[in-house]
Amino acid sequence: MTTIIDGKAVAASIIGAIKGANAALRAQTGKKTGLAVIIVGDDPASHAYVGAKSRMAKECGFFSVQHTLPKETTQDQLAALVHKLNGDDGIHGILVQLPLPQHLDAETIIQSIRPEKDVDGLHVANAGKLATGDLKTGLISCTPAGAMVFVSRVHGRDLSGLNAVVIGRSNLFGKPMAQLLLNANATVTIAHSRTKDLSSICHNADILVAAVGRPEMVKAEWVKPGATVIDVGINRVAAPEKGENNTKLVGDVALAECAPVASVITPVPGGVGPMTIAMLMANSVIAAHRATSLKVPKRLSTLLLAE
Amino acid sequence: MTTIIDGKAVAASIIGAIKGANAALRAQTGKKTGLAVIIVGDDPASHAYVGAKSRMAKECGFFSVQHTLPKETTQDQLAALVHKLNGDDGIHGILVQLPLPQHLDAETIIQSIRPEKDVDGLHVANAGKLATGDLKTGLISCTPAGAMVFVSRVHGRDLSGLNAVVIGRSNLFGKPMAQLLLNANATVTIAHSRTKDLSSICHNADILVAAVGRPEMVKAEWVKPGATVIDVGINRVAAPEKGENNTKLVGDVALAECAPVASVITPVPGGVGPMTIAMLMANSVIAAHRATSLKVPKRLSTLLLAE
Repeated sequence: MTTIIDGKAVAASIIGAIKGANAALRAQTGKKTGLAVIIVGDDPASHAYVGAKSRMAKECGFFSVQHTLPKETTQDQLAALVHKLNGDDGIHGILVQLPLPQHLDAETIIQSIRPEKDVDGLHVANAGKLATGDLKTGLISCTPAGAMVFVSRVHGRDLSGLNAVVIGRSNLFGKPMAQLLLNANATVTIAHSRTKDLSSICHNADILVAAVGRPEMVKAEWVKPGATVIDVGINRVAAPEKGENNTKLVGDVALAECAPVASVITPVPGGVGPMTIAMLMANSVIAAHRATSLKVPKRLSTLLLAE
Repeated sequence: MTTIIDGKAVAASIIGAIKGANAALRAQTGKKTGLAVIIVGDDPASHAYVGAKSRMAKECGFFSVQHTLPKETTQDQLAALVHKLNGDDGIHGILVQLPLPQHLDAETIIQSIRPEKDVDGLHVANAGKLATGDLKTGLISCTPAGAMVFVSRVHGRDLSGLNAVVIGRSNLFGKPMAQLLLNANATVTIAHSRTKDLSSICHNADILVAAVGRPEMVKAEWVKPGATVIDVGINRVAAPEKGENNTKLVGDVALAECAPVASVITPVPGGVGPMTIAMLMANSVIAAHRATSLKVPKRLSTLLLAE
């Protein structure tokens, strides 16, 4: 029997624990978790994402601020806002929605966020902490952190003796995911577009994580029988079966054919997707606890299997 | 025919290019590369290492300063010295010899070195840059950088389609080595003490890098015929054949039996070992060029295959 992970349910349990943690923080310090989200320009998709994040922050009971800047915003103006938020004691997390308009240098802006407030886990100091196995003081990129929650729920915290294969080597997902798996004692292979004989490398994986952005690339014969398969891809493809010009979302894994081979698999949509926003909220409440030198409540840290 | 890499010869060619780069820097700016080495206490092995580094810095034509502090040095005193060197325009590289006496917090000291002067590549900002593939502005840990020079000499800069296996996952070597190989497009597996069936994982490696500290652990049947084998282990073992109580150095690879299977292999001693100090000098002269906004001469950057 294959288990299809319900990402929405897992995310909801984490959000529940975050609400509790935020309430406890408020009871002890009089302060809520403060999350500032910055969006520049009027890309509709970015506005939809930011709206969802701000709503979720409010649902968690956070002090949530959204800074909506016109697309003509200059580098100096944006830098000044980040600088102000860096110094604001009421703000524990700062998120700059990407992509920024082309005339802005996103990297410089991201690196100007104080690492302790970098709830997206994009600052080089946070990348360095994760790369060197320091999970106690850094903030971890949200999507790999969410994928890792699934892995830990299936296999526990210690992955000794298990082979993990991550397909994809982006800084946002593949590399941090590999580091998290390695930190949990898995033997980790990072495969990518330049890998030869990808299917046979994947077939060796007890834990297979796909993040390449190629619709349904991973086929049944790539999957080791009994493997745990985590699908991080989100690809929009034509869905003529739903009528002309209709589309649907699929992952990087051919779910229907891989599910019977795998022991555990995540669907798209409804798998890793809902976890990303939950982990953003988790990073924010963790940052707030650290800022006030309080321990994150056990209920949340156990769910995250992280702190 | 197996090629046994002569690490001393490769290191000497790099040192030659470093001398040239330092001389050119001096001609253009009036400044030499400045390297400060700090040693605390009187551990004989540490003094031997530091002596070798200081001598090599002088041989390269650097401005070389050695700070020898008594073992009673306090954290504050050591921190004050690093702070002073951080602000000294004549010093481009700062090296704190490890281990420090037990009463000192080495991690805090290392992280207080300005990343641009962290020629050992141990600062979290340098780890983060390497982890995210930024090799242009960071400084890379010397031993993996040296091992990578060997790999590049054999296979070129682009390792697309090659499987690399790194045994060992230390922050000093295994992790940065894996990141360098990944950055060069290899498919990379990181194996370690918790890996199951290590021999068959190694047997899949076109490039096998061993850094575990277990004498002659890698056997002939672990090596894929024609592989490149890089041995980073340095283990002192009994050598009764040299007479009673005598010892010798061996690597993590059983050289005599693996050499006929491999296509290229590094010996111990005389393989990776001599490269570490050469790469420390390379990092120093690179840091000096960056501090003065000059380009590293092509002869050196080509040899390092890095910049």
